[in-house]
Amino acid sequence: MTTPNPTAAILIIGDEILSGRTRDANMYHLAGELTRIGIDLKESRVVSDDREAIVEAVRALSAKYTHVFTSGGIGPTHDDITADCIAAAFDRSIGVRDDAKALLTAHYEGRGVEFNDARMRMARIPEGAELIDNPVSIAPGFSVENVHVMAGVPNIFAAMVAGLLPRITGGKPLLSQSYRINRPESTVAEPLGDLAKRYPDLSMGSYPFNRDGAFGTNIVIRGQDGAMVEAALMELATLFPAEEHS
Amino acid sequence: MTTPNPTAAILIIGDEILSGRTRDANMYHLAGELTRIGIDLKESRVVSDDREAIVEAVRALSAKYTHVFTSGGIGPTHDDITADCIAAAFDRSIGVRDDAKALLTAHYEGRGVEFNDARMRMARIPEGAELIDNPVSIAPGFSVENVHVMAGVPNIFAAMVAGLLPRITGGKPLLSQSYRINRPESTVAEPLGDLAKRYPDLSMGSYPFNRDGAFGTNIVIRGQDGAMVEAALMELATLFPAEEHS
Repeated sequence: MTTPNPTAAILIIGDEILSGRTRDANMYHLAGELTRIGIDLKESRVVSDDREAIVEAVRALSAKYTHVFTSGGIGPTHDDITADCIAAAFDRSIGVRDDAKALLTAHYEGRGVEFNDARMRMARIPEGAELIDNPVSIAPGFSVENVHVMAGVPNIFAAMVAGLLPRITGGKPLLSQSYRINRPESTVAEPLGDLAKRYPDLSMGSYPFNRDGAFGTNIVIRGQDGAMVEAALMELATLFPAEEHS
Repeated sequence: MTTPNPTAAILIIGDEILSGRTRDANMYHLAGELTRIGIDLKESRVVSDDREAIVEAVRALSAKYTHVFTSGGIGPTHDDITADCIAAAFDRSIGVRDDAKALLTAHYEGRGVEFNDARMRMARIPEGAELIDNPVSIAPGFSVENVHVMAGVPNIFAAMVAGLLPRITGGKPLLSQSYRINRPESTVAEPLGDLAKRYPDLSMGSYPFNRDGAFGTNIVIRGQDGAMVEAALMELATLFPAEEHS
């Protein structure tokens, strides 16, 4: 039997993704990192910079999954409202925190720039949160209960994830094997469905593609038991031998 | 005053996005198309190939927004369960529909391939749906009430969207102007916040970047009134003249 892994959702906050101005990179990055450590990403949501939408999504996802990772809205400008929304979602107070302020003070003094009110906003942290290190631009992220709040700029997000994940308990990583069949999905469907029924502990995904007018199918077999994944792969290769793929 | 535009959500269905195997392209494409015709994309969700998760998301999004666009899970294989989930979400029956079957029969006969049971699955359409044309691989999408169901393969998704959007009523397109400031976001935040307060009908987004170690900020001003967007842009340019940007 397989052991259930911890589950997760990512909540991406930002009008720029929904308007089509920016293509999200953070979900794709996090999905790969979580798969590697055995946490199952079950859902992703993108909402706009809107207080009600953010609070509602944080509450719903936090209640449903082991972990929630958020991206965006913790900078110094008027549209950065994530920290206040997290505090509201958990009915906590929020204010400038000494350790976060000290980090920023040292950083700005070292660079000889003014620590203005806008920058001070980035030291506002919900009560009882744990800080997440930001080695790129110093202003920290934070965790409140099972919600981990990080910046939206992709290289800062990735650096925060790298610092955060070692303190989160993972599960058994999913192993996967891919197999490419140069035939349309509809000719693969029936034998694949039969195979999937005989391996209920594995997930078998079928991903059609068309390239230069030719239809083909990538099959991805996933599971926690490497020997079982290999056995299913061998059966698949027998059903669709490489000779047919030309 | 601005007129509220129709709203929309996109629901992306597929384990391959959540496992990090595939980077989603369809949300980014749809976001741009909707912005062009004045429909405000308010939320995006990605869920796995799981019946309960799909039904719950379809119901929640359909109740909340003017339109819901789905991507993925309408092919011929065992993991393609979207059509059944849409039927379940709206308590409708589902079965092979004659016009969808006729399209597929003609297509497969023309290419001399067998119309097998797996292919027949793609003619299963919820009761009372309207078909969405698929010029690439023929198997149609469909609309049930305000939910528009399309394929996940990006070029098929894009072709379906191109056929669908002309029959959907748009709103007033959002106009936008970008302005790049070669200063960190925290020095831009206060004057920008003041400017945003004086233009409540515009949205002003602030997008920090760091490139080769230098921090900068892109400001995006959006609104339905082009003259107002231009006026705000001129004020922004006066606050942060190009001379300072070097």
